[in-house]
Amino acid sequence: MGFLSEIPNISFHNPIFCGILANTLLSTVPGVSGAGATPEKTLLTPVLDAELIIRGAITSHPVRPDTPTGCPTPASITRAMMNLCGIQPLFINAGLRHTPTVPCFDVYGSPGQDPRFYDAVPHAQDLVRKGEYIGSILSKNSDLLVVGECVPGGTTTALCVLRALGYEASVSSSFVNNPITIKEEICRQALKRIKADAITSPFDIIRYTGDPMMAVAVGIAQTYAGNLILAGGTQMLAVSAILKATGRSLPHIVTTSYVRDDPSANVREVAGQIGVKIIYVDPGFGDIGHSGLARYCIGEVKEGMGAGGAMCLACLLGHSPDTIRKTILAAVKAYC
Amino acid sequence: MGFLSEIPNISFHNPIFCGILANTLLSTVPGVSGAGATPEKTLLTPVLDAELIIRGAITSHPVRPDTPTGCPTPASITRAMMNLCGIQPLFINAGLRHTPTVPCFDVYGSPGQDPRFYDAVPHAQDLVRKGEYIGSILSKNSDLLVVGECVPGGTTTALCVLRALGYEASVSSSFVNNPITIKEEICRQALKRIKADAITSPFDIIRYTGDPMMAVAVGIAQTYAGNLILAGGTQMLAVSAILKATGRSLPHIVTTSYVRDDPSANVREVAGQIGVKIIYVDPGFGDIGHSGLARYCIGEVKEGMGAGGAMCLACLLGHSPDTIRKTILAAVKAYC
Repeated sequence: MGFLSEIPNISFHNPIFCGILANTLLSTVPGVSGAGATPEKTLLTPVLDAELIIRGAITSHPVRPDTPTGCPTPASITRAMMNLCGIQPLFINAGLRHTPTVPCFDVYGSPGQDPRFYDAVPHAQDLVRKGEYIGSILSKNSDLLVVGECVPGGTTTALCVLRALGYEASVSSSFVNNPITIKEEICRQALKRIKADAITSPFDIIRYTGDPMMAVAVGIAQTYAGNLILAGGTQMLAVSAILKATGRSLPHIVTTSYVRDDPSANVREVAGQIGVKIIYVDPGFGDIGHSGLARYCIGEVKEGMGAGGAMCLACLLGHSPDTIRKTILAAVKAYC
Repeated sequence: MGFLSEIPNISFHNPIFCGILANTLLSTVPGVSGAGATPEKTLLTPVLDAELIIRGAITSHPVRPDTPTGCPTPASITRAMMNLCGIQPLFINAGLRHTPTVPCFDVYGSPGQDPRFYDAVPHAQDLVRKGEYIGSILSKNSDLLVVGECVPGGTTTALCVLRALGYEASVSSSFVNNPITIKEEICRQALKRIKADAITSPFDIIRYTGDPMMAVAVGIAQTYAGNLILAGGTQMLAVSAILKATGRSLPHIVTTSYVRDDPSANVREVAGQIGVKIIYVDPGFGDIGHSGLARYCIGEVKEGMGAGGAMCLACLLGHSPDTIRKTILAAVKAYC
């Protein structure tokens, strides 16, 4: 495979890259999310990632832009690609516990609740409508929109939504040892609530067991007039599955080859069932010359903050795989 | 005079209209602001105005889109123009007491404090920097930016800033009887603090006695690469005066002829001193066939939420004065 598994057949002049930030309180359940030093600290990760991407450094908190196990965060990759492309990314606050340190397009949502016990996104329909407004406003001045996300714990909400919509999904994880037992147990309890209340409509499924990012992403996809790329793995599969259930046409998904190759997930199979096309980016981190990036290949981190979509966008803008790899390496070395 | 006092010499393809929303606690001082049924309710006005413009109606609160004295709000005019032009406006939350009901680009500021007693905008420099980021992001996908504002009490902060910068300004007001005594007394106390601390730098003057809108507007103006129009009266004069003091080139101002003709203000003189060009829009509300709009001519409301800039933009996009007037009349009649 080359750098991209397939060249997307799109032409564009004015691209926008945006990242949808949200929390789900599921990330505070011990063992669910690896996106933070402690379960509670995972709630801050979207804020820190956005700060890194916009400002080039995290100065608001004494943390480094790598994971607890020492891998460079996907946000570092996204930052490097935005710099390379001269693109100023836009962040959307779909519902965060902590106040962002950089300006965000804010829909004034709340963090997603624990779907085992509560409606996860009580105002899902309102968030979809606000996403529609954002899609509409971004349509006026761009013809390609790459939408990434940062939602610690979001693969678990994705699992719940995909299962609730009838897909036999197994989801990816930023942990090398995917905490399947915990996720499956959460999913079992969430689906029990959904079944008890006979919930079947896609927006109600977001309300019961999704997260705020999904609602906003679905809204954006419903109104954005240009080429749309959903940049992410299983979480963007969940967004696609919701769009499919509402009868909407499906955008492409772009993610890394490390998500595809995750033996604990079945991304390709579920994508096939949904009917959404996935383009995989293989940045060849195995021999890039950085042990932390190399560990993406053995299943750590794998993707996040639209890193796959950001690398794809750089490629579409004419940057060679070699330049992209060198830029990423230089960026992550600068943080060491 | 025709509809525009002068045709601005600009060409553009992708216009953006944005409104910067903010509060200053000065609007809660009885008699300072007419932009709300009570002093406390003026704090909610930016939120309601943005809701009206985006959604076409105010449904979050039981209020009508007219002033306490029965004039249609400037936001009604801006809404009508956005509809006519097919433009989706963008709102920026520079620091509000109440949570917006529509998505806003949020810099996570706070309402401005009372400059008689406290620093009005303690983090002015940070807000300028965030405005710079917004100006930079908007530059990528547009070539004309019309920036309006909604800051109840903002003519008083404008008075303070202009005086602190050495201009002998008298400022406009949305009241037909401009509460000059109250404003002058507030200004006297604010300037006393500034003098006592020997404050002279423009950003420090915002910090001492400005409002959050000014900081964000200045930041945007410092980085926006296309044609920039500041849409407003004395408040945009204050923004221009700050830009002048920082050595920046000055954008045009567009406002209504009703601001120019306010006998209690001296907009033209101050503009001349600053060296900023003002283009006046005369929509001829006197004979438009609506008593509330006609009262703009005798000095009520006069301007707000970039209404003058919105009418100018419609004109630049090729809509005739007749169409613009008919559209506004139909819009305000629909609310009756």
